[in-house]
Amino acid sequence: MKIVALAGGIGGARFLRGLRSAHPAAEITVIGNTGDDISLFGLRVCPDLDTVMYTLGGGINEDQGWGRADETFTVKEELGAYGVGPNWFGLGDRDFATHIVRTQMLAAGYELSAVTEALCDRWKPGVRLIPMTNDQVETHVVIEDEQGRRAIHFQEWWVRLRASVPALSIAAVGAEDSAPAPGVLEAIEAADVVVLPPSNPVVSIGTILSVPGIRDAIAAKTVVGVSPIIGTAPVRGMADACLTAIGVETSAQAVAELYGPDLLDGWLVAETDANVHVKDIEVRSRPLLMSDPDATAALAHAAVDLALELKETQ
Amino acid sequence: MKIVALAGGIGGARFLRGLRSAHPAAEITVIGNTGDDISLFGLRVCPDLDTVMYTLGGGINEDQGWGRADETFTVKEELGAYGVGPNWFGLGDRDFATHIVRTQMLAAGYELSAVTEALCDRWKPGVRLIPMTNDQVETHVVIEDEQGRRAIHFQEWWVRLRASVPALSIAAVGAEDSAPAPGVLEAIEAADVVVLPPSNPVVSIGTILSVPGIRDAIAAKTVVGVSPIIGTAPVRGMADACLTAIGVETSAQAVAELYGPDLLDGWLVAETDANVHVKDIEVRSRPLLMSDPDATAALAHAAVDLALELKETQ
Repeated sequence: MKIVALAGGIGGARFLRGLRSAHPAAEITVIGNTGDDISLFGLRVCPDLDTVMYTLGGGINEDQGWGRADETFTVKEELGAYGVGPNWFGLGDRDFATHIVRTQMLAAGYELSAVTEALCDRWKPGVRLIPMTNDQVETHVVIEDEQGRRAIHFQEWWVRLRASVPALSIAAVGAEDSAPAPGVLEAIEAADVVVLPPSNPVVSIGTILSVPGIRDAIAAKTVVGVSPIIGTAPVRGMADACLTAIGVETSAQAVAELYGPDLLDGWLVAETDANVHVKDIEVRSRPLLMSDPDATAALAHAAVDLALELKETQ
Repeated sequence: MKIVALAGGIGGARFLRGLRSAHPAAEITVIGNTGDDISLFGLRVCPDLDTVMYTLGGGINEDQGWGRADETFTVKEELGAYGVGPNWFGLGDRDFATHIVRTQMLAAGYELSAVTEALCDRWKPGVRLIPMTNDQVETHVVIEDEQGRRAIHFQEWWVRLRASVPALSIAAVGAEDSAPAPGVLEAIEAADVVVLPPSNPVVSIGTILSVPGIRDAIAAKTVVGVSPIIGTAPVRGMADACLTAIGVETSAQAVAELYGPDLLDGWLVAETDANVHVKDIEVRSRPLLMSDPDATAALAHAAVDLALELKETQ
């Protein structure tokens, strides 16, 4: 079986670990969000790709969900001693090595997809991880504070401001001129089913879908999504701040409508959201909390099962 | 008093610490060798400038004479885990931060002299440290081994091969098209005396002197050098391998002749080398071992005293 999954960072990566465990024989291709990517200290940092790679490769800091296990922060402290920032982005020493390798390969002319493949040679995540695009797409957030109305990088809003300042709008800058990375469309076309993990529907899944060609290719397949919202709150993270910014209610119902029946065939919601109803989307309720590996694998299994079931009837 | 000193790495840096201690009120300008500079992992590394900066700034690893005190090697280990080398050049985590800042500033368009000044803002070495040039000059070494005759970067010969393969020739590639960094010629012209520490006469002092304009400017001043050779052996390091490569005997006499009386006015040699004699160079014997801060300061004081004495008579 061939499965394609789109993925953001922490939530997506944990779901993918469950998916790999639920379907160890499947060929899983993960299309990763690169809208969060940022250049720091002259180095190219791809937080979502790395979170997926570290999580599936056994190198993740399990407690915080991002960054490396057994991490130290000597380089960051030294950069601070030089007065060089930003200091709000937590790059550890182990993590720095990843960004040094990536930056060096990009400078040598390799595309991000080739760089990601090279990094995965070490981590062996058990899935094929492809960035959504090799072009630069950067998620920017328009805020208004004492400095006036201005656009800032997503990471500045998300990490430095902890999304505490309302986003007036969110844009994937560069998306409309970007192209899917080599292998993305081919993987989707070859897929038996496509799964949308409970990643952020705006700045993770939404950004991936904004790369021209990807949404149409996915819409042509059987697609099951897992709601990132339980009741009126995100399962984890601050997806509500992103949904509010684009005028969408924070509910499993509203996110299903945001994706729409042209994209989504099935939708897994929490048992407390069993009343969600969207025309032409098959909604099933399941325990959504990825509280341990078994629960996560069961959730992933349910998503694939529903997709296979819906595929039969299409 | 204004003093200019040329300097390579470890030996030069230790001498400079003595010079600063011997003449705390003097304005000391250090012209640093950049022929050893190398790009590693996409980062620009300036070993000699950093050794001077760390040594005078109190950040040096005293035991090894280069690199940072309390150093860790997490980034290097991680790069190795990615299969990315070289692994023979010991960049520590604290040291990496210096190279990251330097590389980022160079990429932003700052000249190496401005970058060095910015790095010294943190270290406050108590001297003005200027690279010999802002242009790229790289010392290459021609060797012959089982792979045939070929030129390799100085660091590969010096650090990886430990100078164990004879150097057939040594060249400062790019030197003839280079220009002194801003401030270099001005500092020399304004200097009361110029001091040559016991740095490597070929790949440190020799490389600095190969930048067009520097040798002539220095030759016009009162210059005292400290022999890097005692008897037939370097005080420290592998200067003998470099001298042999350019056909010069390893002796205090031969190095004085290499510099020549057009450049050198005075020459400090070890007490066991009191028989050294070069026409038009005033040779004095002194304890040359920089075994502790007091001995080093006394040596530096003797060099400056001789220069002031010779300047009187010129």
